[in-house]
Amino acid sequence: MAAHRPEPQDPAFEERVRASFAKQGAMHTIGATLAEVAPGRAVIELPWQQALTQQHGFLHAGMVATALDSACGYAAATLMPADAGVLTIEYKINLLAPAQGERFRMEGLVLKPGRTITVAEGRAYAHHEGGEKLVATMTATLMTITGRAGIRH
Amino acid sequence: MAAHRPEPQDPAFEERVRASFAKQGAMHTIGATLAEVAPGRAVIELPWQQALTQQHGFLHAGMVATALDSACGYAAATLMPADAGVLTIEYKINLLAPAQGERFRMEGLVLKPGRTITVAEGRAYAHHEGGEKLVATMTATLMTITGRAGIRH
Amino acid sequence: MAAHRPEPQDPAFEERVRASFAKQGAMHTIGATLAEVAPGRAVIELPWQQALTQQHGFLHAGMVATALDSACGYAAATLMPADAGVLTIEYKINLLAPAQGERFRMEGLVLKPGRTITVAEGRAYAHHEGGEKLVATMTATLMTITGRAGIRH
Amino acid sequence: MAAHRPEPQDPAFEERVRASFAKQGAMHTIGATLAEVAPGRAVIELPWQQALTQQHGFLHAGMVATALDSACGYAAATLMPADAGVLTIEYKINLLAPAQGERFRMEGLVLKPGRTITVAEGRAYAHHEGGEKLVATMTATLMTITGRAGIRH
Repeated sequence: MAAHRPEPQDPAFEERVRASFAKQGAMHTIGATLAEVAPGRAVIELPWQQALTQQHGFLHAGMVATALDSACGYAAATLMPADAGVLTIEYKINLLAPAQGERFRMEGLVLKPGRTITVAEGRAYAHHEGGEKLVATMTATLMTITGRAGIRH
Repeated sequence: MAAHRPEPQDPAFEERVRASFAKQGAMHTIGATLAEVAPGRAVIELPWQQALTQQHGFLHAGMVATALDSACGYAAATLMPADAGVLTIEYKINLLAPAQGERFRMEGLVLKPGRTITVAEGRAYAHHEGGEKLVATMTATLMTITGRAGIRH
Repeated sequence: MAAHRPEPQDPAFEERVRASFAKQGAMHTIGATLAEVAPGRAVIELPWQQALTQQHGFLHAGMVATALDSACGYAAATLMPADAGVLTIEYKINLLAPAQGERFRMEGLVLKPGRTITVAEGRAYAHHEGGEKLVATMTATLMTITGRAGIRH
Repeated sequence: MAAHRPEPQDPAFEERVRASFAKQGAMHTIGATLAEVAPGRAVIELPWQQALTQQHGFLHAGMVATALDSACGYAAATLMPADAGVLTIEYKINLLAPAQGERFRMEGLVLKPGRTITVAEGRAYAHHEGGEKLVATMTATLMTITGRAGIRH
């Protein structure tokens, strides 16, 4: 997707992103971990849990979206200034297949960074019986927030 | 939104929708209840919980989306045949304001029912200190699934 | 959709919006006119033309989207400062029915105005044999652009 | 994007797609040509024209979307049965940069083919002063239409 290797403005981007992730009650609730943080890229993983299912026992699409949105947001955050926060303005998700699996991997990748607006793409994969399957794709629009100390980090 | 009053094909639509809702582990996890079910319309409510927050203590956007997606899906389901299941193909959500409040109300409304494809709109409201605020809007595309017994109900 | 009556910052909003519309080669090409401009609202109309059709002789979805995007953009522009320009960041369109008719009416309405980001909704209606039919719905995210003189008006 | 090489069901897919393209008045109006047709992939090109501009002389976003939507639709059509038509249910477009250039290239690629629903992604590139720039990205949901002879081809 992103052809170039973007340069982070904040050398401590990984520490900043991991600190923000640790503060999200929702990520803890769904058992998600931040598997990878790189410039313009973030990967979130989570295991299947009964508590996160829809009516057939697959991972609920909302949980797929929650983790994918966070992967896109943190991918964007890696390229933002040290004092900035990231806000999801909107996203669109296509659910390509039921999220059936033992664990899930959500990749967020910056497609176009910007001073105010960043566009990122997400891909969700289900790991099931040894195979990997693309189950959802997302496009998200993120906004860089500065100067609202304590609100948006 | 929907100007006309749609006619349900299945007189037992409410019972069917409520039975499906009760099977969703995710809805139970987030403390959601099905507050209203009517032809072409479903309303889901949930209280604030620390376990569902983002890093500032507001309701995580993913949880807003999860409940809103379910509201849209069940709104669509009310107009489907008795033996049909509903599948979310895709949705788009715009997050208009932080989901700050003591409780939340998600309304799903069918904009255009169809034999195969149904389009629904969702609105999420936060109730905070006596006031109500629109915090998110969704458009969702749902598909009627028949003949895959045991899979999609 | 928008429950309140928004207050324009620029009393000359209508003149500004109409001047911008007049400069769009594409609007002239598709025969569109700006039928209505009000605070937070813009309506564009266009007649059917063979030159704008898809393979069955209906209005091409791209032309529906073009006019609807402009209606959303100008609706947003009515609430922006006098020296600002409007930029469409993204939109999503659901095509509900074939755009079959003699003329078309596209309504744009601001759902949530903002200093930087404005969210608008659009509805496209086909007028056919005396009746009116909703054929498409849009959600658009617009950005206020200032300080890039000559580029974004 | 699509990792696998999809197999067309209809060996005459290219002829079928080109015949449909030729019938679109809108594609002729915007000067678009079908540069490439392959299984799961279609590329549309068009030159800059004053008649297709927005107020700064760049290609109107609606025209970018029109060509991109067609590229996605024809990419999906390559994998459909001989007697099927393709219908765009919905799409979402992110406009990443102004469409400034002498000519434009829109690529559509199937991300997930399906019997009823196909998901495709589009990328629009502007060619300007010897360079190429990604100016827009699209995700589109397409539907296979059969048994409505004469309506959807």
